[in-house]
Amino acid sequence: MLTFVGLGLFDLKDISVKGLDAVRRAEYVYLESYTSRMMGSSVSEMEAVFGKEIVLLGREDVEQHPDEVIRRARDGDVVFLTGGDPMVSTTHADLRIRAAGMGVATSIIHASSIASAVCGLAGLQNYRFGKSCSVPFPAKSWFPTTPLETIRQNLALNLHTLVYLDIQPDRYMRVGEAIAIIERMAEILETPAPSLYVGIARAGSEHPHVAAGTGELLKSVDFGPPLHILVVPADLHPVEHEYLRTFAGL
Amino acid sequence: MLTFVGLGLFDLKDISVKGLDAVRRAEYVYLESYTSRMMGSSVSEMEAVFGKEIVLLGREDVEQHPDEVIRRARDGDVVFLTGGDPMVSTTHADLRIRAAGMGVATSIIHASSIASAVCGLAGLQNYRFGKSCSVPFPAKSWFPTTPLETIRQNLALNLHTLVYLDIQPDRYMRVGEAIAIIERMAEILETPAPSLYVGIARAGSEHPHVAAGTGELLKSVDFGPPLHILVVPADLHPVEHEYLRTFAGL
Repeated sequence: MLTFVGLGLFDLKDISVKGLDAVRRAEYVYLESYTSRMMGSSVSEMEAVFGKEIVLLGREDVEQHPDEVIRRARDGDVVFLTGGDPMVSTTHADLRIRAAGMGVATSIIHASSIASAVCGLAGLQNYRFGKSCSVPFPAKSWFPTTPLETIRQNLALNLHTLVYLDIQPDRYMRVGEAIAIIERMAEILETPAPSLYVGIARAGSEHPHVAAGTGELLKSVDFGPPLHILVVPADLHPVEHEYLRTFAGL
Repeated sequence: MLTFVGLGLFDLKDISVKGLDAVRRAEYVYLESYTSRMMGSSVSEMEAVFGKEIVLLGREDVEQHPDEVIRRARDGDVVFLTGGDPMVSTTHADLRIRAAGMGVATSIIHASSIASAVCGLAGLQNYRFGKSCSVPFPAKSWFPTTPLETIRQNLALNLHTLVYLDIQPDRYMRVGEAIAIIERMAEILETPAPSLYVGIARAGSEHPHVAAGTGELLKSVDFGPPLHILVVPADLHPVEHEYLRTFAGL
């Protein structure tokens, strides 16, 4: 059996009780380490608390050479850990399909994810979110404007946008950087930049930082350590406005 | 301190380790019992495993008379349990605002939610979902068509739609009922009904049932006990198609 277990948002205590049971029962535990990060706990802390050795997998291990993981899952219990909720990334879906194709049973144990946590952190209603988007670090010859096009499409429908910020092996995009990149997209597209943002840092931790305001304001806020994420809200409902006023300094 | 703790998707083991710690530390534990249900565990099972008495709160308790909860949270540690991830419902947001208004510190401990779990269950990519909608049980004099309008708006943008199904005190909407209601909406709006659906039952349980197909086909599928939920997919990417073929009988 190959069980995909979500680690949740921030540290080793964000795993579910069911997920922890599965880890403790497993013969082999792998951790996918390239689509997201657990910022609040190191791998050695997880190994100590979970009572298991954890083998780290890079993108190539999962996408090119998943044979060992699948073979071990055919003969015993294997857990594949991921940050957040499993399967939000296509690369996990592909691994599950390959395992099934080799006759291996699979299952999923879910966990907290920024996709729903953003509602509580920012007080924005779940059913008012449109399509999400991701802002990548720009390259010299490559400056995509599709994220702002998605944001503007959502705003035209009066919908909020969850904006994922780039995670690279050596750096994490900060709220202020993302806003500056979005403002540059607005210049290129000759369209207005959003007038209101909500920046969130360390979702799921004991001390998340949530701040709402103009791009100018949020670029001057120190959100502290990663991970950061951004929301571009549509027109606020009264309760949403009151929530941001109370908990995000609007 | 008033701590909102998510119970996650299905049973008492879907709570996070962090959430369980908070419950065990709390002097009072309340359970909001009107916006969602934990189908896999009874309240008495939760009381036994969590080692705490759990006080059930109805809508009126939370929206009209939250004074006792807030007063106790001013003097000690109070946990407010909700199914899924807290704060997806406006009523929780309102309670947090009121508590803050009375000078009470609040925090959130997140948990799994169908909003992200649907990606793993159906293999549909997170960033391809548009606005979600809810299908209510129709009343004699009231048959809203807005859910299908949302679905059609998403399809026009080539986006998937997560369709929440009505939960009443005495009944839960089934996948087949929801599809029949959507097809009736299509007749009223004189627009085509969706040609493909994914039905999901018991997300988060050991045996979720996931089936993809036409409305005609899914209306004949027995999805078993609740909760049920529905997705209307847009054009499928190759990996999405392969996933539904492998795990949902497409």
